[in-house]
Amino acid sequence: MIAATPQPPYLAVIFSSQRTEGDLGYGSMADRMLELASAQPGFLGVESARDAQGFGITVSYWKDEASIAAWKANAEHAVAQRLGHERWYETFRLRVCRVEREAGKGTD
Amino acid sequence: MIAATPQPPYLAVIFSSQRTEGDLGYGSMADRMLELASAQPGFLGVESARDAQGFGITVSYWKDEASIAAWKANAEHAVAQRLGHERWYETFRLRVCRVEREAGKGTD
Repeated sequence: MIAATPQPPYLAVIFSSQRTEGDLGYGSMADRMLELASAQPGFLGVESARDAQGFGITVSYWKDEASIAAWKANAEHAVAQRLGHERWYETFRLRVCRVEREAGKGTD
Repeated sequence: MIAATPQPPYLAVIFSSQRTEGDLGYGSMADRMLELASAQPGFLGVESARDAQGFGITVSYWKDEASIAAWKANAEHAVAQRLGHERWYETFRLRVCRVEREAGKGTD
């Protein structure tokens, strides 16, 4: 689902990843992280898609750097980050960006 | 596949979309647009994932605003944009961002 973000500027974290094979507890943790992130101050929305080959992109939107830093430091999220690195992702890349402008169809 | 982008800063175009049902010529046009974009000056890479429900995220990476503007104005791409709006996408949102920093695993 397309996130109903406010007028730019705001921040986006693009997380691109290739999953390892097998669930290994990933599904339930992903659900929990979504629930937890959504409750963070400064969280503006999230979009996520993963294909049948296990390649996925999740983009989370944030008010400012402080809200990203607080989410990164969240204790439960820190555990998930460690497991992600060790167990769930073959490769990943995380890019922090400033959204400067946007346009769309059926999403205003 | 994760794009091998250079050191930030550079630009990212996040294109999030919900496909309409049926192919309607989408698949072959998407292949052609990927081929064409990859040949544009200032193109740095692309990542794309679409799930079984037709929700997808494509992130293309670019050197600067001029390279994004030139790609947007490309004649063949302009036809694809029009068909995307009319036929292939139920909803979409396009966000232009400046990538400020990044980190990862297995992608350096």
